[in-house]
Amino acid sequence: MRTERGKSGEIQPDNHKLYGMQTARAVDNFALDYKKTNLQLIYAIATVKKAAAMTYQKLGIGKDGVYAAIDYACDMVLKGKADDAFVTDALQGGAGTSTNMNVNEVIANLALQKLGFHIGSYDIIHPLDDVNRGQSTNDVYPTALRIAAIQMLRKLSESCAKLQQALQTKENEFDNILKLGRTELMDAIPITLGQEFGAYAQAIARDRWRLYKVEERLRQVNIGGTAVGAGNNAERKYRFGVIEVLRELTGIGLAAAEYPMDITQNNDVFVEVSGLLKALSVNLMKISNDLRLMNSGPKGGLAEITLASMQMGSTIMPGKVNPVIPEMIMQVSMRVMANDFAISTAASHGEFELNAFLPLIADSLLESLALLTNAAELFRTKCIELIKPNPERCKELLELSYAFATAYTPLLGYDKVCEIIEKSSGNPQKAKEMLDD
Amino acid sequence: MRTERGKSGEIQPDNHKLYGMQTARAVDNFALDYKKTNLQLIYAIATVKKAAAMTYQKLGIGKDGVYAAIDYACDMVLKGKADDAFVTDALQGGAGTSTNMNVNEVIANLALQKLGFHIGSYDIIHPLDDVNRGQSTNDVYPTALRIAAIQMLRKLSESCAKLQQALQTKENEFDNILKLGRTELMDAIPITLGQEFGAYAQAIARDRWRLYKVEERLRQVNIGGTAVGAGNNAERKYRFGVIEVLRELTGIGLAAAEYPMDITQNNDVFVEVSGLLKALSVNLMKISNDLRLMNSGPKGGLAEITLASMQMGSTIMPGKVNPVIPEMIMQVSMRVMANDFAISTAASHGEFELNAFLPLIADSLLESLALLTNAAELFRTKCIELIKPNPERCKELLELSYAFATAYTPLLGYDKVCEIIEKSSGNPQKAKEMLDD
Amino acid sequence: MRTERGKSGEIQPDNHKLYGMQTARAVDNFALDYKKTNLQLIYAIATVKKAAAMTYQKLGIGKDGVYAAIDYACDMVLKGKADDAFVTDALQGGAGTSTNMNVNEVIANLALQKLGFHIGSYDIIHPLDDVNRGQSTNDVYPTALRIAAIQMLRKLSESCAKLQQALQTKENEFDNILKLGRTELMDAIPITLGQEFGAYAQAIARDRWRLYKVEERLRQVNIGGTAVGAGNNAERKYRFGVIEVLRELTGIGLAAAEYPMDITQNNDVFVEVSGLLKALSVNLMKISNDLRLMNSGPKGGLAEITLASMQMGSTIMPGKVNPVIPEMIMQVSMRVMANDFAISTAASHGEFELNAFLPLIADSLLESLALLTNAAELFRTKCIELIKPNPERCKELLELSYAFATAYTPLLGYDKVCEIIEKSSGNPQKAKEMLDD
Amino acid sequence: MRTERGKSGEIQPDNHKLYGMQTARAVDNFALDYKKTNLQLIYAIATVKKAAAMTYQKLGIGKDGVYAAIDYACDMVLKGKADDAFVTDALQGGAGTSTNMNVNEVIANLALQKLGFHIGSYDIIHPLDDVNRGQSTNDVYPTALRIAAIQMLRKLSESCAKLQQALQTKENEFDNILKLGRTELMDAIPITLGQEFGAYAQAIARDRWRLYKVEERLRQVNIGGTAVGAGNNAERKYRFGVIEVLRELTGIGLAAAEYPMDITQNNDVFVEVSGLLKALSVNLMKISNDLRLMNSGPKGGLAEITLASMQMGSTIMPGKVNPVIPEMIMQVSMRVMANDFAISTAASHGEFELNAFLPLIADSLLESLALLTNAAELFRTKCIELIKPNPERCKELLELSYAFATAYTPLLGYDKVCEIIEKSSGNPQKAKEMLDD
Repeated sequence: MRTERGKSGEIQPDNHKLYGMQTARAVDNFALDYKKTNLQLIYAIATVKKAAAMTYQKLGIGKDGVYAAIDYACDMVLKGKADDAFVTDALQGGAGTSTNMNVNEVIANLALQKLGFHIGSYDIIHPLDDVNRGQSTNDVYPTALRIAAIQMLRKLSESCAKLQQALQTKENEFDNILKLGRTELMDAIPITLGQEFGAYAQAIARDRWRLYKVEERLRQVNIGGTAVGAGNNAERKYRFGVIEVLRELTGIGLAAAEYPMDITQNNDVFVEVSGLLKALSVNLMKISNDLRLMNSGPKGGLAEITLASMQMGSTIMPGKVNPVIPEMIMQVSMRVMANDFAISTAASHGEFELNAFLPLIADSLLESLALLTNAAELFRTKCIELIKPNPERCKELLELSYAFATAYTPLLGYDKVCEIIEKSSGNPQKAKEMLDD
Repeated sequence: MRTERGKSGEIQPDNHKLYGMQTARAVDNFALDYKKTNLQLIYAIATVKKAAAMTYQKLGIGKDGVYAAIDYACDMVLKGKADDAFVTDALQGGAGTSTNMNVNEVIANLALQKLGFHIGSYDIIHPLDDVNRGQSTNDVYPTALRIAAIQMLRKLSESCAKLQQALQTKENEFDNILKLGRTELMDAIPITLGQEFGAYAQAIARDRWRLYKVEERLRQVNIGGTAVGAGNNAERKYRFGVIEVLRELTGIGLAAAEYPMDITQNNDVFVEVSGLLKALSVNLMKISNDLRLMNSGPKGGLAEITLASMQMGSTIMPGKVNPVIPEMIMQVSMRVMANDFAISTAASHGEFELNAFLPLIADSLLESLALLTNAAELFRTKCIELIKPNPERCKELLELSYAFATAYTPLLGYDKVCEIIEKSSGNPQKAKEMLDD
Repeated sequence: MRTERGKSGEIQPDNHKLYGMQTARAVDNFALDYKKTNLQLIYAIATVKKAAAMTYQKLGIGKDGVYAAIDYACDMVLKGKADDAFVTDALQGGAGTSTNMNVNEVIANLALQKLGFHIGSYDIIHPLDDVNRGQSTNDVYPTALRIAAIQMLRKLSESCAKLQQALQTKENEFDNILKLGRTELMDAIPITLGQEFGAYAQAIARDRWRLYKVEERLRQVNIGGTAVGAGNNAERKYRFGVIEVLRELTGIGLAAAEYPMDITQNNDVFVEVSGLLKALSVNLMKISNDLRLMNSGPKGGLAEITLASMQMGSTIMPGKVNPVIPEMIMQVSMRVMANDFAISTAASHGEFELNAFLPLIADSLLESLALLTNAAELFRTKCIELIKPNPERCKELLELSYAFATAYTPLLGYDKVCEIIEKSSGNPQKAKEMLDD
Repeated sequence: MRTERGKSGEIQPDNHKLYGMQTARAVDNFALDYKKTNLQLIYAIATVKKAAAMTYQKLGIGKDGVYAAIDYACDMVLKGKADDAFVTDALQGGAGTSTNMNVNEVIANLALQKLGFHIGSYDIIHPLDDVNRGQSTNDVYPTALRIAAIQMLRKLSESCAKLQQALQTKENEFDNILKLGRTELMDAIPITLGQEFGAYAQAIARDRWRLYKVEERLRQVNIGGTAVGAGNNAERKYRFGVIEVLRELTGIGLAAAEYPMDITQNNDVFVEVSGLLKALSVNLMKISNDLRLMNSGPKGGLAEITLASMQMGSTIMPGKVNPVIPEMIMQVSMRVMANDFAISTAASHGEFELNAFLPLIADSLLESLALLTNAAELFRTKCIELIKPNPERCKELLELSYAFATAYTPLLGYDKVCEIIEKSSGNPQKAKEMLDD
C-alpha cells in the first residue's frame, strides 16, 4: 500500500492509479458529479509540460534521464494512453491547480514507470520540483487553454468553411427559383431562393473570417511568467527557450506576452472569442429559423423547401417529419449563448494577480468550440446539402402576392399605388391591371 | 449666494434649487447622462420620510413644528411639486445614498420654505439630523424600493388581468373556428382557433397569479434597521411606530423583517420578482410570435388571422402592413430579460452588510415593471382586441393537410397508417380514402 | 442479424442492444458528442410508462400479458438495469421524441425478452402501438420532466435545509465575537460574526422555502393530453386512471392540468423554477464571496476567519492555501445563472402547440438542480462546518476603526461628529476622546 | 387645422409640429413611455438623407430646388434645430420604419418651410417620394446605425486611450512601491503597485485597439439596397453616387457591401461589436473591484491605496467615504453586459430578408457606447488620476506575509519549504530564519 505524505494529512490513493494524492483530494473536494476536465485542455497542458521537458534537456538541466522520461511520459498522455487518469471535475476551485497537479502527478508516475521505479517515488521524479519546474498553474493553465482554444478554433473555422461552401452550392443550384421575399414575416418583393442561400453563405463566411482572425489574439502566452506573470522561480534560459519549443511542437505562432502579468490576471480575450462564437450562433439561429419556416407544412405551411426526413417525427402522429437538425442547431446556439454568459461573468470576477474562476471559462469556451464544430458539420451534411426546393410552390406564393407593386412607385408615387392596392380588395391581379393602366 | 459647508470642500448650488450640496456633488460624480432616478422610487422614499415624520410627531419628538413641516414637504413631493429637483443619475455609486440625500435635502428645504426660512438653513431643519433621523440609506432605500415595486406590481397584475380577459373573449369568439394545429411548425392535428387563445389566456392567468402572490415576499421591510439592519441610532419607539404608519400610508400589509440584517444585505427577493417578470416576458414572446406567424401573408403566408393595421408598414413597399405591436412586445420582453441579467448580476455582488449595486437593481426592476405594464395595455388594446379571424383560410389549410390521419392509428396501428400516407404521394384525399377502406 | 423496417430506410442496430432503429437514427442525427440525456429524466419517463401499463392492466386493455411485461420492463429500467441503453444526446431536435422513442424501444425489447421473444419482435409488443399507447412525446416528456424536477427539488430543498442549519450553528457559535461591520467594503459599525452567519442562514432559509413552495407549480401535468393537449387517441378511462396511478407511484400530489393545451405549449413554469435556482445561486455567490474576503490573508488580508485547508493551494508557492470550496460554489452559481439564460431563451421560442426546444430546457434545469444539490452539500461539509473564527483579529480590526463614531450622532449631530473625525487625523483613539468630551 | 390623409384613417397632428401623421401614429402605437430614439441615430439618418439629396442634386434629378431644400433641412436637423420633433419611442415595432418616417416628415416639412410652403404640402415635397426617394428603412436605418456606431466607437476609443494613459502614469508613479501580490485573495509573492497599474493599462490598451480595429467591420453599408438589399427602386446612378457622398460627409471609409442582402438581414456585426464592449466592461469590472479592495478600510481593510473622497459616504455614519466612482463603473459594466444580451437575442430573431428587432439592437448598442464613453472619462478624472498610494501600508502587509518563501523552492524543494512554513506556526520571521539556515 503506497502512502503519500502531504501537508493536509494522509490519503492512500489506489496503488495502480497514475494520479497521486493531490488529485485524489481534488476529486473528493469537487465531487459535483458534473463532468471531467476537458481532455483537449489536458493534452494542451501535457504539450506545455513536454515543451518544458525538452527545453530542460536542451539546456542540460535536471538529473540524468529525468527530463527524457518526462518527455516520454508527455507523449504517452498525448497518445491518449492515460485518459482515465485525468479525473478532476471541470468546475474546480483553485484556478486550475488541481488539473495542473493531476497532469504533474500522472506524468511523474508515467516517467517513473518508464525508468523502472514504483509509482510515487517522488524522490526520484517529483511532480512539482521536476515536472512543474519553473512553472506555475498560473502560466501553464492559461497558456494551455490558449493552445487548446486555437486548435479547436481551427477545426471550427474549417467546419464553417465547409458549411459556407455547401450554402454557396445551394445558392447556385437555386439561382433561378423565383420566390417571395419577406420582411417582418409579411410579403415584400420578389427575390430568388438562391439569393437567400447567398445571404446565409455570406454570414457564415464572415464568421469563418472572424474565427480565423481572432486566433492571433490568443497567440500571446504567459508561459514563463509563473505565479503572477513576473517570472518568479523560472530560469531565464528556460523562459526564453520554452516558448520556442512550444511554437515548434504546436505549429502555432505563439509569442511571449510583452506584459505577462496582464494576461495572467485578465481574461478579456476569452470574452472576445466567446463573443464571436455567439455571433456565429446568432447566424446559425437565423438560418435555422428560416429553414424551419420555409420547410413548414407540408400542406398547411410555406413548403417552399423540403428538408430531408432524418427520423420519425412523432410517436403519435404517423407520417410526421420534423426539422430536427435545425432544432438541434438552435439548441446548440442557445447553449453557446449561455456559455458566453458564464465566460463573461467569470472573467469579470478576476481579483488582483489572478482569476480564480478560469476553470469555468475554460470548460465553457472549449465546450462551445466543440459543440459548434460538430453542429456545423451535422448542419451541413444532414440538412443543408440535402435540401430540396419546391419551385412551383415558390412561384405560386409569389404570384398570389402584391410583391410586384413596389416597382410601380417610382412612376406613380407611393400614395397612388397604396390607393390602387386598397381599391383592389385583396385581388392582386386586379391591382396589377389597374397599375398597368 | 448660498454656500453650504461640507466635508469635501465648498460647492455653491443654485440658490433657487431645492436640492443641496450633496445632491450637486452626486450630479457631478455620476455625470453619465444616462437617466434620472425613477420617480416612483423617489415618491416611495418620500412616503418613508413622511411615515417617519408622522411617527416623530406622534411621539412628540423633535423641535416644535419641524416634523409637521417635514410632513408637509413630503406631501409636496408626493404631489409631484418638486419632480425637477430629483436629479441624481440612476446608475449612481454609493448604494443609493445620493438619492436618499437628494430627497433629504429637497424635503428639508421645502420644509424650511414652509416655515418661512431660507433654503439651506440647516441649523433649523437638517437634512440628516432631522429629515433622516433614525434612518440610513440602507433601510430607507430598500424599504422604498419594495413599496414602489409592490405598487407597480399591482398595476402590472391588473394589466395582465385585462389582457387575460381579452384573450378569453377571443377564445370564446373563435370557439367554432376549426384550424390546423401545428407542432415544430409542422402540420399536426385539428384544433380550434379558440383553443389557441385559450392557451394564451391560461399562460397569462398564471403570470397574473404569480405576480399577485409574489407581493408577499416584498412586504417584509427593514425600515428601522438603519445602517446594517441592527437598528443603530434608531429609537425603539420610532422603530415600532414607523412600520405601522407606513402600513397605513401605503395600504400595503408591510411587516418588519424578523432579521433585518438579512434583507439589508441580501437582494435575492428582487431576483425572484425579476424572474417572474421574465416568465411573463417569455409568455408574451410566445404569444406575439404565434400571432405574427398566423398573421403572416397576407397572400404568401398563413393568413389565419389578420392583425389590425396600425400604421403604414414600409417607406418603400406600398400597402404593406406589419405586425408592429407584437414586434414591440417582443422587444419589451427582450429588454426585460436583459434587465433580469443586470438584476441578478448586481444582486450576486453583495458584500458583507450591504449591496453597493442596489441602484442598478432598483432602476432595472422598476423599468421592467413599467415597461411590461404599458406593453400589456398596448398589446391588449392595439392588438388582441382587434384581431380578426379568417375562418375560410383556417379551414382551407386544415383540409389540405394530413391532420386527420392520427385518428386512425388506434384502429390500424402506427406503421400501417405511415405506410398508407407514404403511398398517397402527397395527396391527403387519397390517403383518407385508403384509410377509410 | 436483426433488421427493422422503418419509414426512412433500413438500419441494422446491434442485435444485442436494447434500443432499436429510431434510437439509432437519433444517435446518428444528434452526434454532438455533448452528453447523454439526463438519467433522472429517463427514469421519470419510465415511471410514466409504468403508470400507463398499470392503468391498462387495471382496465383490462391490451393483449394478454403484454402490459404486465411492459410493467416489468419499466421496473428493470427504474432499477438501473438498462442505463447503457439510453443513448440519445441531450441536445436533440424533435422536442424529445427521440428520448421517448428510446424509452419505448428499450421497454418493448425488455418486455419481449421477459416473454421469451427476440428483441425487435414488434408484432408482439410494439414500441408505439403498445408501449406508447394513448401517449405522445408531448404529454409524456413534459410530465416526466415535472416529476424529475420535483424529485430533484426535494433533494435540493433538503440540502439547503442542512446548509441553513450549519449556518445557524455557526451563528450561535460566533455569537459573542465582536467584529467590524462593513458596507461598500468600508469600515461601518460594530456587529458580531454570529450576526453575519445569521444573515446567511436567513437567506438560505428563504431559498429553501421558495424551493419547497414552487413544487406545487410543477404538480399540474398534461399526461393524457397527447399530441397537443386535446387528448387525441387517448381513451377516456385511461386518461382518468393514469394520473391516479402516477400519483401513487411517485408519492407526489400530481394533478391533471385543467387546460392541458396550455402546459403542452407553454414552459414558463420552468422559467419560474430556474429563476428561483438563480436566486439561490445569487445568495451562494454572496456568502462565498464574503467568506473569501474574511478568510483573505493569512497575513496580508482580513483574516477574520480561517477556512479549512482542503488541498495544496499552489504548484509553485509553498504553504499557500486557497478557498477552493467557495471558488467552486461560485462557479456552480455562474453555471446555474447561465443555464437560466438557456432555459428562458428556449422557453421564449415556443411555437403554436409545442416548444421544440424542451430538451435544452430539461437538460439545463436538471443540471442546475443536481449541481446545486451537490454544491450545497459540499459547501456545508467541506467549508461552513469547518470554519474557525479568529476572534482576536476581529477585535483588532474593530478597535482600529472609527466604527464607534456613529453612536455619537444622535447626541452631537452628524456634522459635528464629521468635524471631530476630520480633526483626529486618522487616529480613532483621539477622535473617541474628543467625542467623549 | 391641417389634416393629412393616410391609409389608416385620419389623424390631425399639431399644426405647428414638424412631424406628420405617420409619426403621430407611431407615438400612439408605441406609447411605452420608455425613452426616445437615440439622437445620434437620428443625426446619422439625417446624414444619409443629406447624402441622398446631394447625390440627386449632382445627378440633376428631382423637381427644381427640392433637393437643395431637403439638403438645407438635413443641415437644420444636424445642427440640432429640430431635436424636439423626433418623438418615436426607442422600442418600436416595424424595424425602424417609424423613425425613418419621422425623419422623412420632419425633413420634408423643414424643406417646405424653407421654400415658403406650409407644413404638410406634400404635393410639393413628399416625405416618401422625395425625401425617401430610392431608399427604404431597411437600407437607411442599418447604414445610419453603422455610421452612428462608428462615430461613437471613435469617441469611446479616445476615452479608453486617455484612461490607459492615466493608468500608465500611475504605473510609473507607483513603480517603486513594493507590495504583496495576491492570487485567489491570498498572500502570494512580492510585486510593485506599479506593476498592478501596468496590467490594468495593458488590458485597457487591448480594449482600445480592439475598438479601433472593429470599426472596419462596420464600414460595409447596404445603402442603395433598399427593401431587401436587391436595390429595388433605386436608380443605378444614385446607388453608385450616394456611397461616395456619404463617405465624404462622414469622413468614414464606408464601402458598399458586396452582398447587400446579407447585411440587410444579418446583424451579427452588432453582436461582434457588443461583445467587445462587454470585454471592455469585464476589464472595467476587474479594475474597479481591485481598486475597491485595495482602498478598503480605512482602518479595518487593506488600505493600500486611497481613492479620493468624492462625496459624503453615508447618511448615518459620519466620516464614511465610499468608493462611489468604481461602484458606478461596475454598474455601467453590468448594464452593458445586459445590453449585450438584448442585442444578441434580438439579432438571433432575424427572419428572412430582415430583422424586425433592429430598433432594440440600435438602442442597446448606442446606449452601451455612450455609457462606456462617459464612464471611462469619469473613471479617469474622478478616480484613477486622484489615487494616492499608501506605501508604508503596502510594505507593512508585505513584510507580515510569507511572500518571500516561494523564492526558496528552487533551492530547497517544494516539500521542504512547506515543512518549514508549517513549523513556523504562523511566524514568517521565524520561517525566514529557518529557510536561510
